[in-house]
Amino acid sequence: MFDEIFDVIVVGGGHAGAEAAAAAANMGSNTLLVTMNLQNIGQMSCNPAMGGIAKGQIVREIDALGGYSGIVSDKSAIQFKMLNKSKGPAMWSPRTQNDRMRFAETWREMLEATPNLSFYQEMVNGLVVEDGIVKGVKTSLGLTIEAKSVVLTNGTFLNGLIHIGDKNFGGGRAGEPAARGITEQLVELGFDQGRMKTGTPPRVDGRSLDFSKMIVQPGDDVPSRFSYTNTPLLEHQRDCYMTHTSAEVHELLKEGFDRSPMFNGRIQSIGPRYCPSIEDKIDRFKEKDAHQIFVEPEGWNTVEIYVNGFSTSLPEDVQYKALKKVRGFENVKFFRPGYAIEYDYFPPTQLMLSLETKLVEGLFFAGQINGTTGYEEAAAQGLMAGLNAHRKVKEEEAVVLKRHEAYIGVLIDDLITKGTEEPYRMFTSRAEYRTLLRQDNADLRLTRMSNELGLASEERVRRVEEKENRAEQFVQFLKNTSYHPETVNPVLREINSAEVKQSDKLIKVYSRPKMTLAHLERLPEVQEHMKEERYDAEVLEQAEVMVKYAGYIEKEKQNADKLSRLENVRIPDHLDYHSLKSLSYEAREKLSEIRPSSLSQASRVSGVSPADLSVLLVHLGR
Amino acid sequence: MFDEIFDVIVVGGGHAGAEAAAAAANMGSNTLLVTMNLQNIGQMSCNPAMGGIAKGQIVREIDALGGYSGIVSDKSAIQFKMLNKSKGPAMWSPRTQNDRMRFAETWREMLEATPNLSFYQEMVNGLVVEDGIVKGVKTSLGLTIEAKSVVLTNGTFLNGLIHIGDKNFGGGRAGEPAARGITEQLVELGFDQGRMKTGTPPRVDGRSLDFSKMIVQPGDDVPSRFSYTNTPLLEHQRDCYMTHTSAEVHELLKEGFDRSPMFNGRIQSIGPRYCPSIEDKIDRFKEKDAHQIFVEPEGWNTVEIYVNGFSTSLPEDVQYKALKKVRGFENVKFFRPGYAIEYDYFPPTQLMLSLETKLVEGLFFAGQINGTTGYEEAAAQGLMAGLNAHRKVKEEEAVVLKRHEAYIGVLIDDLITKGTEEPYRMFTSRAEYRTLLRQDNADLRLTRMSNELGLASEERVRRVEEKENRAEQFVQFLKNTSYHPETVNPVLREINSAEVKQSDKLIKVYSRPKMTLAHLERLPEVQEHMKEERYDAEVLEQAEVMVKYAGYIEKEKQNADKLSRLENVRIPDHLDYHSLKSLSYEAREKLSEIRPSSLSQASRVSGVSPADLSVLLVHLGR
Repeated sequence: MFDEIFDVIVVGGGHAGAEAAAAAANMGSNTLLVTMNLQNIGQMSCNPAMGGIAKGQIVREIDALGGYSGIVSDKSAIQFKMLNKSKGPAMWSPRTQNDRMRFAETWREMLEATPNLSFYQEMVNGLVVEDGIVKGVKTSLGLTIEAKSVVLTNGTFLNGLIHIGDKNFGGGRAGEPAARGITEQLVELGFDQGRMKTGTPPRVDGRSLDFSKMIVQPGDDVPSRFSYTNTPLLEHQRDCYMTHTSAEVHELLKEGFDRSPMFNGRIQSIGPRYCPSIEDKIDRFKEKDAHQIFVEPEGWNTVEIYVNGFSTSLPEDVQYKALKKVRGFENVKFFRPGYAIEYDYFPPTQLMLSLETKLVEGLFFAGQINGTTGYEEAAAQGLMAGLNAHRKVKEEEAVVLKRHEAYIGVLIDDLITKGTEEPYRMFTSRAEYRTLLRQDNADLRLTRMSNELGLASEERVRRVEEKENRAEQFVQFLKNTSYHPETVNPVLREINSAEVKQSDKLIKVYSRPKMTLAHLERLPEVQEHMKEERYDAEVLEQAEVMVKYAGYIEKEKQNADKLSRLENVRIPDHLDYHSLKSLSYEAREKLSEIRPSSLSQASRVSGVSPADLSVLLVHLGR
Repeated sequence: MFDEIFDVIVVGGGHAGAEAAAAAANMGSNTLLVTMNLQNIGQMSCNPAMGGIAKGQIVREIDALGGYSGIVSDKSAIQFKMLNKSKGPAMWSPRTQNDRMRFAETWREMLEATPNLSFYQEMVNGLVVEDGIVKGVKTSLGLTIEAKSVVLTNGTFLNGLIHIGDKNFGGGRAGEPAARGITEQLVELGFDQGRMKTGTPPRVDGRSLDFSKMIVQPGDDVPSRFSYTNTPLLEHQRDCYMTHTSAEVHELLKEGFDRSPMFNGRIQSIGPRYCPSIEDKIDRFKEKDAHQIFVEPEGWNTVEIYVNGFSTSLPEDVQYKALKKVRGFENVKFFRPGYAIEYDYFPPTQLMLSLETKLVEGLFFAGQINGTTGYEEAAAQGLMAGLNAHRKVKEEEAVVLKRHEAYIGVLIDDLITKGTEEPYRMFTSRAEYRTLLRQDNADLRLTRMSNELGLASEERVRRVEEKENRAEQFVQFLKNTSYHPETVNPVLREINSAEVKQSDKLIKVYSRPKMTLAHLERLPEVQEHMKEERYDAEVLEQAEVMVKYAGYIEKEKQNADKLSRLENVRIPDHLDYHSLKSLSYEAREKLSEIRPSSLSQASRVSGVSPADLSVLLVHLGR
């Protein structure tokens, strides 16, 4: 059937698989995307939204690297919000609500327009592995497709088991079959395997809801976008709504707890802590008698509604009875009930920082198979796995983003160094250098590097340069231009900031905390300059961060530089930790398992003490 | 979960299910559409096209009745062709190529915009039947949903078994699970069940084909449409292409025959005779060393190509090797191989003409479950089943279209009266009054009746009236206006038609076979009139048929009237044929099984002789 040997085969067409395929193909690898159903490429299996806190930054990073998630999200967005705009810029987090069908269709179109990328529909149920090296995949029809590297992105499909109440049945997603065979083979090859659980809320008929009883949640007045390319800005948006559960709703839900697979022991595996089911929330926060529910439309033209916050695997009659008591849901009609799904994952400590498995050369894992949750986390891993699978084939060194370079670096380092025993999702708090890892500068951080690797286009680099130059130009203007007390004082009075006596440079007043761009723009000298120069919104945003947060950023950069020094102390791949008798026993065990690539990574392995690090430093000749 | 009793539950969301749900809901029934996967509503499982010979007429009839297939097809069309335009108007058959994703999305949007229609996603695996009366359905989660009537439209999902070469596995469609439970229950209830088989060709990557080696197949220069409503006409179209198999291709395919499930006995069930697999064509037409292949794009923006004419269940390596030898396919890349699928059907002689089952009251079947093949046949049955399920609930008499009223009447009468042992598809030759059953007059035939039933809108009736009036106006103009020999003779000379000496009415020359509207429009008096009146294209088409085929049509009408007389001799529902000892034994058996509702239907039951009919006539008191 296939008379060629592919460079890269990607198994799965979700967020991870789609990004992996795009990255490998765009780098120049002859790539094949194999999936059970080509019509389901780019499905949003759970909520119809991308981004959010920390996750929005990841989407921006993916985009800056030349991945597609940002563009797909922009093109299929029905609402845009910059979250945390009232906080410091490290916290600003873009988020879109998306049209589920348009999202999948856009992914499919973008992948089809990608050179070097072929598609094949069939279930992969095995790998070809020879002497510890991956050679291809096997399909359910008995076909062998050869490749130099393989990226597995199986999502929730590996032995997927769907639970609703006391019923359960095999499936990879509602209405789709589970994938069999791969887990069994990996275990035979020596991989540790675990089970995780995730869940999804009911989908309901928007025609049956009373939105007038809910709190409207509109998008931003001036919507922005994910992509640093010029994807069109939204001209119209669809509103979301908010409502709440109540004590009565909770009581009704509790009536089903004895039939809940979460509570009766049927589901043993662990679900996402920060995306709990409604029954979990009731159980864990007994003092709360109301939880938020976000009512999210599934697209421009559909009446289908995603009931965000009401994820559940309670019996469907219980789901129904309880949801009917939620304000605005009195006459609710279900499209489908919520459910939980258990699936196989492989503890990610079995991977190298490149996302290549330690056990099988050329085999990469990305997404939920690594124990993560979230579209953005999956897409980010997919991109890095695709990129590194390509580099593996070309016999080039793996690309590893550092923790101070990208949330993606934090994500992968956390997974590989610490492992995870519950579905891992990103938070800003996980990034020690989050002041550096902002949504406004992902392009400045990553695009040039990606371009050098052959992924981000020249055009992207040109845009980065222009943005930098223009922002610098604006900052220079602020540094060189003086204000007049008589025009600035009325503004300062308004924001309760001390008035000035003498003229000074504009940058001085702009640095004051309460002074925003809108205030600045009321000064005649600024007005004149901006009329002439017509800066883009993102240029001004960048300049604002440069002016107002210069101190914080500089300090974090210094900290990061210190880290880099440890980072630069590389540990050889095959160091025999057991021969270093001065290491603690636990350190020898853990380091042998994780095999950190640098002293910095070694320092983050749990059970490795400062004393152990000193032993390593001495051994490595520093 | 559902605290209401629905009027109608429709199981399945394909062409049959979607039309059934729309019809029942639009008539006013509280309707629920239940399907395994709401995202797959309105899927084109096989070719991305609607209509064609006889099938196009059916789509026009569905549209005239107020069904949605015509509108959905128009809105998602990428190419339109009126087939057989060179033949008589009874043969004109509209056909569209469609964007597969857009088609499904449009169906979903239209259904969501339908009042009284709810949706639910789950697999139905049983019926609730009490005392021979259907009471609802059961789902895989153990839910019971109550209803006064149920329409089953399970397509190829009932115990679906997919075959490729010597491999087979359960599935309702590629990548979707099969449905279990319903067949077993129906058999237990006393239904006869059979197996049928159908197949689909490979889907391939358009980027790997050389279209310059193929014959381009563009759409019509002036595209028309299916719907009698004002769906927008296509402004752009996508081309299809044609190529051919060769002796070499056939030889390569034959190498796989020993592994073909069609030839090695693994598939026992019968496939669609007029849509054979390529291996069937090679086997049956040994003298032919080339078969046509139509290369059809799957949508506006996708590179996916449907290889029409190459349906096959040969092993995938054989499919690949052979297809590579087809002109233009030298570098073909597969998206997925062709496959065959076996599924359960229920011989349709177990139904009444309303499509209600004889064994279970309130239970209706539509589509492939009745042994038909084709989207249009399925949709037509769906519409009639939905309509009659509604009428059953309202305790109104079933609506049965007569054979001289609609292809849909022919279709259902054939199924119920004769049964079918192979997948049934419609042909113009099946309709004895096909001169009456034209694509141009489906609205005139059916819309008023449908409006009286409460399905077709007032607006549709207004359009019909306007079309009739305007066509009549044009015909009157032709009858009342004289031509002048000096202007008409140059035209007649051009078409080698005898010249005229004297002036006469325009209708006289227009009636001549070779005289088209384009010729007529060259006469100054016609030009003047048309400039003033600005007739729609369909009005002129209608007038042309009225003028040029008046004789044929009148004759067929008389024949049909004769038939109606037999049709009007109704046979009581519970007539005890076995008590009529003058009937032949075979007639007693067959009539007891089929239970025809009229003498006309009885005459079409196989094994019923003219002598038997006389016995019946006498018994019925005529």
